[in-house]
Amino acid sequence: MKVTIVGATGYSGLELVRLLQNHPKVEIAMVVAQQNVGQRLSDVYPLLRGICDLPLQAFNPTRIMEESQAVLLATPAGFASQHVQAFSDAAFPVVDLSGDFRLKEAGVYEKWYQKPAASQKLVEQARYGLVEWVPQKEQTLIANPGCYATATLLGFAPVAQAGLMDPDFVVVDAKSGISGAGKKADLAYSFTHLQDNLQVYKVNQHQHIPEILQQLQAWQPDVTKMQFTTSLVPLSRGIMSNLYFRLNKKISEAALYELYSQAYQEHPLVRVLPYGDFPDLSHVRGTCYCDIGLQYNPVTEMVFVVTVIDNLGKGAAGQAIQNLNGLFGFPTSLGLEVSAVYP
Amino acid sequence: MKVTIVGATGYSGLELVRLLQNHPKVEIAMVVAQQNVGQRLSDVYPLLRGICDLPLQAFNPTRIMEESQAVLLATPAGFASQHVQAFSDAAFPVVDLSGDFRLKEAGVYEKWYQKPAASQKLVEQARYGLVEWVPQKEQTLIANPGCYATATLLGFAPVAQAGLMDPDFVVVDAKSGISGAGKKADLAYSFTHLQDNLQVYKVNQHQHIPEILQQLQAWQPDVTKMQFTTSLVPLSRGIMSNLYFRLNKKISEAALYELYSQAYQEHPLVRVLPYGDFPDLSHVRGTCYCDIGLQYNPVTEMVFVVTVIDNLGKGAAGQAIQNLNGLFGFPTSLGLEVSAVYP
Amino acid sequence: MKVTIVGATGYSGLELVRLLQNHPKVEIAMVVAQQNVGQRLSDVYPLLRGICDLPLQAFNPTRIMEESQAVLLATPAGFASQHVQAFSDAAFPVVDLSGDFRLKEAGVYEKWYQKPAASQKLVEQARYGLVEWVPQKEQTLIANPGCYATATLLGFAPVAQAGLMDPDFVVVDAKSGISGAGKKADLAYSFTHLQDNLQVYKVNQHQHIPEILQQLQAWQPDVTKMQFTTSLVPLSRGIMSNLYFRLNKKISEAALYELYSQAYQEHPLVRVLPYGDFPDLSHVRGTCYCDIGLQYNPVTEMVFVVTVIDNLGKGAAGQAIQNLNGLFGFPTSLGLEVSAVYP
Amino acid sequence: MKVTIVGATGYSGLELVRLLQNHPKVEIAMVVAQQNVGQRLSDVYPLLRGICDLPLQAFNPTRIMEESQAVLLATPAGFASQHVQAFSDAAFPVVDLSGDFRLKEAGVYEKWYQKPAASQKLVEQARYGLVEWVPQKEQTLIANPGCYATATLLGFAPVAQAGLMDPDFVVVDAKSGISGAGKKADLAYSFTHLQDNLQVYKVNQHQHIPEILQQLQAWQPDVTKMQFTTSLVPLSRGIMSNLYFRLNKKISEAALYELYSQAYQEHPLVRVLPYGDFPDLSHVRGTCYCDIGLQYNPVTEMVFVVTVIDNLGKGAAGQAIQNLNGLFGFPTSLGLEVSAVYP
Repeated sequence: MKVTIVGATGYSGLELVRLLQNHPKVEIAMVVAQQNVGQRLSDVYPLLRGICDLPLQAFNPTRIMEESQAVLLATPAGFASQHVQAFSDAAFPVVDLSGDFRLKEAGVYEKWYQKPAASQKLVEQARYGLVEWVPQKEQTLIANPGCYATATLLGFAPVAQAGLMDPDFVVVDAKSGISGAGKKADLAYSFTHLQDNLQVYKVNQHQHIPEILQQLQAWQPDVTKMQFTTSLVPLSRGIMSNLYFRLNKKISEAALYELYSQAYQEHPLVRVLPYGDFPDLSHVRGTCYCDIGLQYNPVTEMVFVVTVIDNLGKGAAGQAIQNLNGLFGFPTSLGLEVSAVYP
Repeated sequence: MKVTIVGATGYSGLELVRLLQNHPKVEIAMVVAQQNVGQRLSDVYPLLRGICDLPLQAFNPTRIMEESQAVLLATPAGFASQHVQAFSDAAFPVVDLSGDFRLKEAGVYEKWYQKPAASQKLVEQARYGLVEWVPQKEQTLIANPGCYATATLLGFAPVAQAGLMDPDFVVVDAKSGISGAGKKADLAYSFTHLQDNLQVYKVNQHQHIPEILQQLQAWQPDVTKMQFTTSLVPLSRGIMSNLYFRLNKKISEAALYELYSQAYQEHPLVRVLPYGDFPDLSHVRGTCYCDIGLQYNPVTEMVFVVTVIDNLGKGAAGQAIQNLNGLFGFPTSLGLEVSAVYP
Repeated sequence: MKVTIVGATGYSGLELVRLLQNHPKVEIAMVVAQQNVGQRLSDVYPLLRGICDLPLQAFNPTRIMEESQAVLLATPAGFASQHVQAFSDAAFPVVDLSGDFRLKEAGVYEKWYQKPAASQKLVEQARYGLVEWVPQKEQTLIANPGCYATATLLGFAPVAQAGLMDPDFVVVDAKSGISGAGKKADLAYSFTHLQDNLQVYKVNQHQHIPEILQQLQAWQPDVTKMQFTTSLVPLSRGIMSNLYFRLNKKISEAALYELYSQAYQEHPLVRVLPYGDFPDLSHVRGTCYCDIGLQYNPVTEMVFVVTVIDNLGKGAAGQAIQNLNGLFGFPTSLGLEVSAVYP
Repeated sequence: MKVTIVGATGYSGLELVRLLQNHPKVEIAMVVAQQNVGQRLSDVYPLLRGICDLPLQAFNPTRIMEESQAVLLATPAGFASQHVQAFSDAAFPVVDLSGDFRLKEAGVYEKWYQKPAASQKLVEQARYGLVEWVPQKEQTLIANPGCYATATLLGFAPVAQAGLMDPDFVVVDAKSGISGAGKKADLAYSFTHLQDNLQVYKVNQHQHIPEILQQLQAWQPDVTKMQFTTSLVPLSRGIMSNLYFRLNKKISEAALYELYSQAYQEHPLVRVLPYGDFPDLSHVRGTCYCDIGLQYNPVTEMVFVVTVIDNLGKGAAGQAIQNLNGLFGFPTSLGLEVSAVYP
């Protein structure tokens, strides 16, 4: 199968190229970008010399549909909502990595993204692509989840899906590597500012909050609010999401653990650690895995869950390829069960 | 005034030497260590050549009391409890940087430290040295607070002291640089394992938990439990402590902020940021400052407080010198109002 | 084809496992280690859960020869020299990643490694496996080159092979990431000591010096000495080797560049950059590539060559798999043309 | 004495403020910047809250001369050459941290800086401020040396001054932390690009090359060329300069070492390590020290010298304060013998 990557020179686009190298069934037909059209992708990223020397092309939906069987949009918020109609009209498979089709209500999108929302019709056509939890359906437009949303929802899913969360008190303390901010020429993202530093940012204001709450409510309608902290840590890649919550009824630690291990038993890219063990972020760096550790604290009666992903891997390009695999009828983890580079 | 540093070759001991360089009134009389006796401190740490070339000496309480007017014990847990009697008998000023005299109940100490506790009499003589909050008294034995305890207690103090915390739900998500573990030849602290990594550790098991709860209860007796997460981030120094809690009665955001800004108005080493701003860890690296940011979230009705310190500075050696200043009758911040090295 | 990895829990062993995941023709039959026998490799390295869950086995040459068609020895210096006889007797293919069979003279080995040398007969059977430069022959015992040696020799090869080096003056200033030292519980390799630091070490004393000189002399007999500096930089992986030398006759810059680009034209894992461009270390991190940049300086009449590799990839496990491919009759780069994880 | 800092919001300006905090005799009268005039310096750099809350002012030579007894110009190349006349006319002491007055020939300046040179008269009035080597004279305009130039010249000085260098072959392989590039919003200086990376840049094109050669020639006229490599390493601060050269006559290792140790005996900020030891960069981080290690290699007949400095400390602001001390008649190291923050 052939696929086109739009936004191939951004970090998520580059990660799509990298992950598809190993894919046994999918080939990259075209790479599309706004800038550097005519240059080879390996001119922009010399690390790809001899690996992906395709020329960068301008965005042209007709050509994309002629040359490939699906398109991956690794473009900034606001692009997909404006450009997806042609694909949609042709029922041509699209995985959009931006936030444009994730939020069901236009008003919510416009509040958190400060941009005009996509047409309600397109939004309705889109399926939220949290692969392990949202069943494959006939839709051809997939809204690939955000990185913080992926890390956080995979940690809440087993209990929320079972309706077991105490909605009164939900805290998420999440940390991200710097690539989460994208490729930006900005003092705030300079090495000198971030090395040996640690900061919280966008406290309770991150645009993945409504996305997480929308899905939590779909699972357990009374979960309507959450305290959500995002932090920058001095590493390039990776998210660790620490979840704190209580249950609305008493269950044993064994039963709690069973909920998690059962939930992901059939899903090779989500690995639940032995009860009481917690994951290292380095173990998922550069991968499409999500590792999960959990523990109940009888003193505070809180459940503590830690999830780790690579924000560009499982949190973006990796999950997009899972969705692509699904659209093509392959097992969703095809070509993605590859370990981290360690140390 | 002259002071002796015991444990001068550990990280906290070295930091004491560094911070006392700038001190206008205190001079280092002797440096004591278990190993390398006879060598100069600058042989062990060539960065001190020309700055502190004193010879390392064996531990000898009599000589220490002859040569100096106070002693700083930067020794592992279990040392001070065994060696402080001679100083105590002579009412000779001691600041102990270990946990040996922090916990009032022997059973609690023995449970969390897995060592025999100090004699109850010595423990009773000791004063907990959280400088900004525990009044100077006549005691000459000071139990210098732990690093996580300092960062966390300075963040809770204004509300706990006012009896405003909802005791039902208290979460602390704290992160530390690697030097917090001390000077250790251990794969777990190797560069290759920690670079590009993030881990939680000792979840709800860190020995600073009982120390924090003991002090919280002293301020507000019904605060008896807390969820406490400690994490390792890839930087050498610094702690960021994120506090999540509710209030037991409604107060305005302005009143909440006023509590914090008033509490620290007279204390130059604790800086409360403008309401809604949050601190950078790099701003306190290498210093004795604690910077605090806070915000109330009307949706979740939670207060979110972020505190940052240098674990070796304000979290150990810096606070020890504050206590030493107090013992000598100087302003506690004397010689310590020095800015971070940035970038 | 099936292969056994001996020393699978060291860094090079782990890298062999990682790189062989992607290999289309080679499968891991057994993983062997000295410690943790009976545990699964993924118990020691949880990052391999679901990827390589093979049990660790004790070293047993007979079983290795029954279960696999070749063996990779990722063991410390001194192991292979003592244990390779059984394989050699059976003409069973061996790639040894240590220094045991690299140096032709026993005295030289013993001086630089401070260990007894392998038997002269075994050493004579061994072929030095600098893949791009040493022709495949009938030998079944391969001495896989050292990491610094690989980075340095690939940079000198085109001119030395052509006999063009001025032997009077050769300087190499090389830098390595910390994993080059292996998996070590040692203060010298602790995070706190290495972060924000830069050090030279083993100046003119590194054990790869005789290995490099031996090969340089094989190409150009009058090159008998070199100034060689090794440094530690705060990153986990990677070597950058800066070469400074003069030519023994005048050639044009175009001819010089031609030498390099021609030399590696047929070798996809060595990428010569456009003349005057220099490589980023991050572009080869986690890969089996060597990127090379070069420039002639008419003022000093010196040639400056920069080569970058991943010390565990091209500098160890990657080259070992190239050699394994050769032994099996596959193209040497089979399964290894995979790009770096960036950023 | 009172001093004004112009360019106080750049990295060198901030470092001047930091280092002057500890100074026993100098006080900051005014801080001047192009942007943020009217704000306090601590609004721009909250790490200075309570430490330096002076308001930023516009550049006004008359006011500067009224309010202070000297001015430090931490401004980009091209500023001082245009604005120093007023100070010069009044013989008002100036230390310029830029390259504007370092190069004696206008043509050389214009070639390497791509800007118009300062007037020849001003250039002639300026004294090159390599404190340990250029004698204090009556001049009031000081050209503070560049960071690479300082690290490199302090390493060559003892042999060049003695006329012992073989001019035929001189190689410098220098590495710098990222702050050397200044405060820049640029992808090339972003965290994601530089973390886990290593690059050479400006090979033989760095603007400190003519500055170094000019001074080398002043000491030993036949030293007219040098191979000079600059590299970026993933740390915020620090330069390590590795020097490779031969001597033009044979001297013993003891005599060579004596040259170095004698040269700096009276200069507390330059520390020559025991023969054969090499310095750690972390030992000078945040300081005004230069540490030097050296060794002769009898095989290659080369001398190898390693020098380390902090590019913002001894390489910029620290040396500027040494020069300021000299202008005020204080010992040049006054207030600057302060150790590094380690670990």
